[in-house]
Amino acid sequence: MALHRVIILGAGFGGLAAAKQVTKTGAAVSATLIDQRNHHTFQPLLYQVATAGLDAGDISYTTRRIARDNKSLRALQGRVVHVDFDTQTVVLDDETRVEYDSLIFALGAVTADFGVPGVKEHAFGLKSTADAEALRQHVISIFDQVANSIARGETVDPASTTFAIVGGGPTGVEMAGGYAELTNRVLLPDFPEIDPKLVRIILIEGQGALLGGFAPPLQNKAAARLREIGVEVMLEQQVKSITGTCCELADGSTIPTTTVVWAAGVKANPLAEQLGLEVGRGGRVIVDDQLRVPGHSNVYAIGDLAATPQPNADGLVPQVAPVAIQGGEFVADRILDSLAHGHSTTTPEPEFRYVDKGSMATIGRNAAVVQLPNGKRVSGFLGWVAWLALHLVMLMGFRNRISVFLNWAWNYFTYDRGSRAVIETTRPELTSQTSTEEALAQTLAEAHGPGLPPGSGVLQQ
Amino acid sequence: MALHRVIILGAGFGGLAAAKQVTKTGAAVSATLIDQRNHHTFQPLLYQVATAGLDAGDISYTTRRIARDNKSLRALQGRVVHVDFDTQTVVLDDETRVEYDSLIFALGAVTADFGVPGVKEHAFGLKSTADAEALRQHVISIFDQVANSIARGETVDPASTTFAIVGGGPTGVEMAGGYAELTNRVLLPDFPEIDPKLVRIILIEGQGALLGGFAPPLQNKAAARLREIGVEVMLEQQVKSITGTCCELADGSTIPTTTVVWAAGVKANPLAEQLGLEVGRGGRVIVDDQLRVPGHSNVYAIGDLAATPQPNADGLVPQVAPVAIQGGEFVADRILDSLAHGHSTTTPEPEFRYVDKGSMATIGRNAAVVQLPNGKRVSGFLGWVAWLALHLVMLMGFRNRISVFLNWAWNYFTYDRGSRAVIETTRPELTSQTSTEEALAQTLAEAHGPGLPPGSGVLQQ
Repeated sequence: MALHRVIILGAGFGGLAAAKQVTKTGAAVSATLIDQRNHHTFQPLLYQVATAGLDAGDISYTTRRIARDNKSLRALQGRVVHVDFDTQTVVLDDETRVEYDSLIFALGAVTADFGVPGVKEHAFGLKSTADAEALRQHVISIFDQVANSIARGETVDPASTTFAIVGGGPTGVEMAGGYAELTNRVLLPDFPEIDPKLVRIILIEGQGALLGGFAPPLQNKAAARLREIGVEVMLEQQVKSITGTCCELADGSTIPTTTVVWAAGVKANPLAEQLGLEVGRGGRVIVDDQLRVPGHSNVYAIGDLAATPQPNADGLVPQVAPVAIQGGEFVADRILDSLAHGHSTTTPEPEFRYVDKGSMATIGRNAAVVQLPNGKRVSGFLGWVAWLALHLVMLMGFRNRISVFLNWAWNYFTYDRGSRAVIETTRPELTSQTSTEEALAQTLAEAHGPGLPPGSGVLQQ
Repeated sequence: MALHRVIILGAGFGGLAAAKQVTKTGAAVSATLIDQRNHHTFQPLLYQVATAGLDAGDISYTTRRIARDNKSLRALQGRVVHVDFDTQTVVLDDETRVEYDSLIFALGAVTADFGVPGVKEHAFGLKSTADAEALRQHVISIFDQVANSIARGETVDPASTTFAIVGGGPTGVEMAGGYAELTNRVLLPDFPEIDPKLVRIILIEGQGALLGGFAPPLQNKAAARLREIGVEVMLEQQVKSITGTCCELADGSTIPTTTVVWAAGVKANPLAEQLGLEVGRGGRVIVDDQLRVPGHSNVYAIGDLAATPQPNADGLVPQVAPVAIQGGEFVADRILDSLAHGHSTTTPEPEFRYVDKGSMATIGRNAAVVQLPNGKRVSGFLGWVAWLALHLVMLMGFRNRISVFLNWAWNYFTYDRGSRAVIETTRPELTSQTSTEEALAQTLAEAHGPGLPPGSGVLQQ
């Protein structure tokens, strides 16, 4: 019997769960996991890469490694540029074509700018390891630039030492806490010439409380804890526009800053719409209560990408990892079930029901807030330990777990962060001194110009 | 009494040794360590970053962290663009100016192409973590590209699966061994569709033996071990030119390859000459037997940058880490000595003498060759353990030592490599789907063009 061919587009939580479930022992399935990158990214810890607590490699796990020990699964790397639903073929950017019998869209979400001017050009997102590394290097480089400007005897521009984080959801809260600790514990001791009072970390939230969806006592605890470690929490403030040097608020006030982290929200990966799928609010793909795409009985959409209905509640299910994982397992089971029994028109088929397992957010060391679905709440040190344990368990790969655990232990006991080397992110030309030569020629001219007498701005050691 | 101001340019082995020694307890010195990067790079392990055994962060250590616990030392990040020897001022690319009483040039070396056409444009160097990361990502991406071409039913281009390493010194030998293991143990199991026979790793050396300077039995052992793990060792072969798809040899033969690693040699950092220092062979700065730059009694050059004379022997001292470390300590002691006693014209001042501590190179797991200065030799497993121990001890920072040690243990016992996620090296635009959209439009046109009938190249699962 020919194997049933399943293609899973996207190696996030949903895609991995589907790939694992649909290739379980005994399944007559041959699955292909396709991602534009060669690895799964553990997005919940991206903020720790951005705040120099972890290396990018710690939260990445290659899809080839995932597929290596699974005879029914293989991994391909490539960007999907076309899906031919008639010939049941997926086309990648290098013209590789792969046929399917069942197709699962698990392309996730991207940062949404909600039409705010300047976000795309000037803000930092946090949806990939490349985002996180860019942000980390940017922030650390700023401290070096400020130190040099102090050495030149210049007054520090407040915009350069102000870090604005927009969005008070878990990502924004965790980023703000992470940056407060990175600054207080690591960067300020490393840069003794920088006055701690110059450094501002501002968390801007449009609603009246942080962590929408959490119980008010937890919301208040999170805000109090952030303020305790030096974060300025601004509530009920909408961002109107962002430039390279300023963040303008809806009430007309402005925050001079060269660093805006945009954690205000996500939208479904627009690739799905481009590939011809029907989308609704937030660009999310319309699915029925079995997560099928209308008009295609063998095409599914799950996770952040899908406009999954939430029975007995208003609106859609949230765009969080557990929804993706449960969706991936659900559609895998549906595929296996129809292979085993064929589609039945009489038996009612099961509907997807999201089981809320609770939400959590950490706020620096020793503190986290956990909201359980039964209304129970945990916070403080106990919540923090629960957060650590859950994230270690969810992480792919034993090596990554060890590495993250040891990094956490190191960071915890030494207050140090190991990952703060700024690696050039473009490939340098071999034997290149070009940039140095150019800089040399340019600065020599400037340094000897009439406006700069020798000795001006000379640092007195 | 005003503190004696020492500037050290370059945070390699020599610069760090000088900075440490010149600020030792009791010294009336204020030192500034300046580097174009914010970190020291442990160059001996760059090849392990290039072969996915270590993360870049494992072999990087920020200069700010080094200076944090040393009250007499501070670190600045910047490119030196000018030195005014009259006003005793160093000028950085951002116009920061720092004055010195004593100046130590420790700018190291860069890859030398020896005038071979195409090296600069097409070959990969290995002198920085950015070099190493670019190479690692290139090699791993090639495997993905080849796998996709196999999926399209195409014949594999031998150039894409041939990896040429030019230069049979320690760097070339370690790279070749590292790539053989990465390929055999990790990439080929990850990519079962790629025929192992397609993958060639070629080490090209101009002389008649690898590891010039080592005793012939060790040279032979290294070559034999490399051949054992699948490396083609070509001796007495000069590279005439390199293109993006080919490496041409002096005897007229060609090696089709898209990956050439250039480990054929280094030259002194050309910045020294641009800054007005007199240089000799290999661009190395002329120094007297006290490592002073002629005409400047308070300016020194050390390590790979300096044309350090070798008494009782032909030529110059080699460009290796121990020379830099000993040179750094020597000039620091000379500075401290002259501070304590003033310059004497009667007492003969000590000359720098390089004490050879031996050389070593590792050839994959369980094998290394060690050449001791007394003529003794160690090889095999014992040599390998000695190599591991020495490199761990030399590494900066306790955290890096732990991390490298655990990575090595992991790689050793699992035959796995943790660091093989390919992270985009350019900052992605926020919410960008631009590249995808462009690729989509382009490939859609191609995919539906007349030349590509539906189903052509479709992978049969």
